[in-house]
Amino acid sequence: MNGAEGLIRTLLSGDVEVCFTNPGTSEMHIVAALDQFPEMRCILGLFEGVVTAAADGYARMTDKPACTLLHLGPGLANGVANLHNARRAQVPIVNLVGQHASYHLRHDTPLTSDIESIARSCSTWVRTSWTASQVSCDAIDAIAAARTAPGRIATLIVPADVAWSEGGTVAGMPLVSRPPIPANEIIEQAAKLLHSGIRTGLLLSGNALYGRGLAVAGGIAAATGAQLLAPYPFARMERGARAPRVDRINYAHDQAVEQLKEFRQLLLIGAVIPISYFAAPGKNAMLVSPECRIHTLARPGEDYVGALEALEGALSLGKTPAHSRKLQRPQVPVGQISLPGLAAAVAAHLPEGAIVVDESMTSGRGMMAAAQDGPPHDWLANTGGSIGIALPLAVGAAVACPDRRILCLSADGSGMYTAQALWTMAREGLKVTTVIFANRVYGVLKREFSYLGVGDPGPCARDLFEIGRPDLDWVHLAKGMGIPGTSVSSLEDFAKALKNGFESEGPILIEVKL
Amino acid sequence: MNGAEGLIRTLLSGDVEVCFTNPGTSEMHIVAALDQFPEMRCILGLFEGVVTAAADGYARMTDKPACTLLHLGPGLANGVANLHNARRAQVPIVNLVGQHASYHLRHDTPLTSDIESIARSCSTWVRTSWTASQVSCDAIDAIAAARTAPGRIATLIVPADVAWSEGGTVAGMPLVSRPPIPANEIIEQAAKLLHSGIRTGLLLSGNALYGRGLAVAGGIAAATGAQLLAPYPFARMERGARAPRVDRINYAHDQAVEQLKEFRQLLLIGAVIPISYFAAPGKNAMLVSPECRIHTLARPGEDYVGALEALEGALSLGKTPAHSRKLQRPQVPVGQISLPGLAAAVAAHLPEGAIVVDESMTSGRGMMAAAQDGPPHDWLANTGGSIGIALPLAVGAAVACPDRRILCLSADGSGMYTAQALWTMAREGLKVTTVIFANRVYGVLKREFSYLGVGDPGPCARDLFEIGRPDLDWVHLAKGMGIPGTSVSSLEDFAKALKNGFESEGPILIEVKL
Repeated sequence: MNGAEGLIRTLLSGDVEVCFTNPGTSEMHIVAALDQFPEMRCILGLFEGVVTAAADGYARMTDKPACTLLHLGPGLANGVANLHNARRAQVPIVNLVGQHASYHLRHDTPLTSDIESIARSCSTWVRTSWTASQVSCDAIDAIAAARTAPGRIATLIVPADVAWSEGGTVAGMPLVSRPPIPANEIIEQAAKLLHSGIRTGLLLSGNALYGRGLAVAGGIAAATGAQLLAPYPFARMERGARAPRVDRINYAHDQAVEQLKEFRQLLLIGAVIPISYFAAPGKNAMLVSPECRIHTLARPGEDYVGALEALEGALSLGKTPAHSRKLQRPQVPVGQISLPGLAAAVAAHLPEGAIVVDESMTSGRGMMAAAQDGPPHDWLANTGGSIGIALPLAVGAAVACPDRRILCLSADGSGMYTAQALWTMAREGLKVTTVIFANRVYGVLKREFSYLGVGDPGPCARDLFEIGRPDLDWVHLAKGMGIPGTSVSSLEDFAKALKNGFESEGPILIEVKL
Repeated sequence: MNGAEGLIRTLLSGDVEVCFTNPGTSEMHIVAALDQFPEMRCILGLFEGVVTAAADGYARMTDKPACTLLHLGPGLANGVANLHNARRAQVPIVNLVGQHASYHLRHDTPLTSDIESIARSCSTWVRTSWTASQVSCDAIDAIAAARTAPGRIATLIVPADVAWSEGGTVAGMPLVSRPPIPANEIIEQAAKLLHSGIRTGLLLSGNALYGRGLAVAGGIAAATGAQLLAPYPFARMERGARAPRVDRINYAHDQAVEQLKEFRQLLLIGAVIPISYFAAPGKNAMLVSPECRIHTLARPGEDYVGALEALEGALSLGKTPAHSRKLQRPQVPVGQISLPGLAAAVAAHLPEGAIVVDESMTSGRGMMAAAQDGPPHDWLANTGGSIGIALPLAVGAAVACPDRRILCLSADGSGMYTAQALWTMAREGLKVTTVIFANRVYGVLKREFSYLGVGDPGPCARDLFEIGRPDLDWVHLAKGMGIPGTSVSSLEDFAKALKNGFESEGPILIEVKL
């Protein structure tokens, strides 16, 4: 057995079942090993930013890592922006990065670069394997690192001679340590704060935003009058009328300050103190009131669900009450395209169990509110602020959940970053309905330019914000990558296209011209 | 004057006239400063891999740096793969990378990352400016670093508060030190080797491959019987019947060994000893014969032209002789598409003064030979082995040389990496004719898989090499980005489309289905 075969068999025994990849020459022996194990599903992306965001989407929906297989430093570098987003999402991913044969490195041939440095910028764990017998143990360590709560990026660099040399082994199961539950005093302090009757927010992150964690948090909120909040950049939120209501903190500084000003206590469960994305001259970046007391119930990496359960116990709430609201959908809107109309249409037609991947930026602000009381669904957001995540994140979510419908909402500027994901959707026959909001502008920048007090944009600034001239034609782009597309110019057309997408056996794209 | 204005005025006074960019919120004050100075031409890319390769193409054709303006760590990371290629091309580029306001960094908000680490992986010079009064001096240092021979990547990180704070200054001109000419003994030793009559190659790099450098090298070769060689990954080569003939070393290991086996002496002018791109089991990576004596005439960073002139002097050659060969073009080929036919068609129609950007990979191997004795033209190649350079490199070359025709030859797999460049070509009305060789396969990988002795690709490997299913439709992709495209299925059609492209006032795309 060579190192590559040992590596793949070890990954499989460590419950890594999907490999998103764009391999190159230095990874050929790993590809040959993948050929031997069809139980590892291999999915090709035509660009590494697709590969890494797909692994992120997969992890968000399965709570376990996929692996990526990337070509040396440049292949990894192409995936860094979406690994940055994945790092902020705190999901588990195991990156395998090829490397020159160890003895070839000294020649500094053209593709040589400092892979470990690039990897460190977006990974918690980085290691290079130097022997075929060691690579499987390193893979186990990588899986264990990735699965360490709340979820981490682990990058294992595999020189070609390590892959092709005999001496491979299959290492045992990774030992993943359980995340610690916060100390009793922390829990009791939180219970005391909640008993105080002071206006309190529970700011939730990670797995406190879905499943058991959200159910317990919802029970605590219902019993104490506290409000559930999520950071603007959350990884995954369970939603719909049957789920506890969670309010997302606004992106825009002034609106977030307004939203949070009533709170005098904030309990952090895996989240950090709310701060503006960016500083602005003369603005305080802190979004909560100076009078707000911050209490960290569970730090990132602690057991959020365990902390919430302990808090529930300390509050003596007994059985978690149900939190259903009445399932209601907006009326199907008609007429001209408008942002509220689009939001209502999405909410009116969203299938039960849908996964909404949302990078709609300035065009989709009303979407979450409109779907609040709809059927059960999950919502995935951009976590690291690096645009170009939605389309490939949808790929990963669809691979993770083949029985669920994926609605991918993307701004046109963001969509152009990793549009290659459309091809992977087509190849894999993924049930993704992609909506492109074609407003032909980097809307955030236009707004921020004015917010920052820089004055009115002149010709150069306008040229850099406006992405028309020429207009992108997303129907052609989709067709070029094997996906049927349609452009809609009324809410009726939009609704029809959405329904068509949700009934389709494969991906479709809807361009909404704004 | 704020820091941003001082920065832009300093760049302009340092002869940096073009800014390729995709800015974000943290760069808004720099954008506002750009708005004030229309003499800095700003060109938007819809993805940072476009931005950085465009700066590379511009530098290759002007021998001076453009600047890029990139959005924080992720924006830079998206540009790293093509900065890796630019670093290997040894061209000057000044990257400006935005950063959070200095006092905001401690909050570790979502877009925070270790920008300096990412920058170091692809830059020779990295610095963060911390005050508005310092940023202009830092910019001067960046320009000087970028212009230090043979050309370097300099990355200046500019926190938002440095850009928006008053106290900006305009710094003086950069002091660029002249590259050193090698010592006399080195020159004389080289002259002695050339006088020996032993079969000798002059392996040229950087500016020894065009202009004065190539002319002198050609004179030396003609007088001594030495042969001019270029590394497989060269940045720019002047070609055509009037230019000295330079043979490019083959990419494929066995062919390169065959090509170089006759040489018993190799003089390196800015180049390094020829080594295989990748190691392979049981193969010696060294491409020259073990009996070949290597003499470094000019190390990277020394004065290649000066070294060649000194060598010319030491050889007492007197006036450099002319090296014209008879200008000849292949006959216009007809009939079915074939790789030799495509090469002949390109050579038959190549306009005088054309710039050929070549990332045609396995499909374009015959192109250089076919155009060898044609009209004067320049040839630009992929220097770092990271695919996805051709389309944006063509953007940069076209911006640098608006009066010349650009022929961009790209494989389909490579083209998909940075296809967004088509949009910038359309917006800027660049005279680029892009030819996509649509063979629907990562041909290099298919070949390497077999070369590495891994056996026959199985279903998984084939899926990862073959990028059909679905087929990409480049005519639709081009149309989606505002470029007229055509798909050709005969050599007559190809010739017609080429002629049409070379006469067009803007970009066109030709898909060649193989």
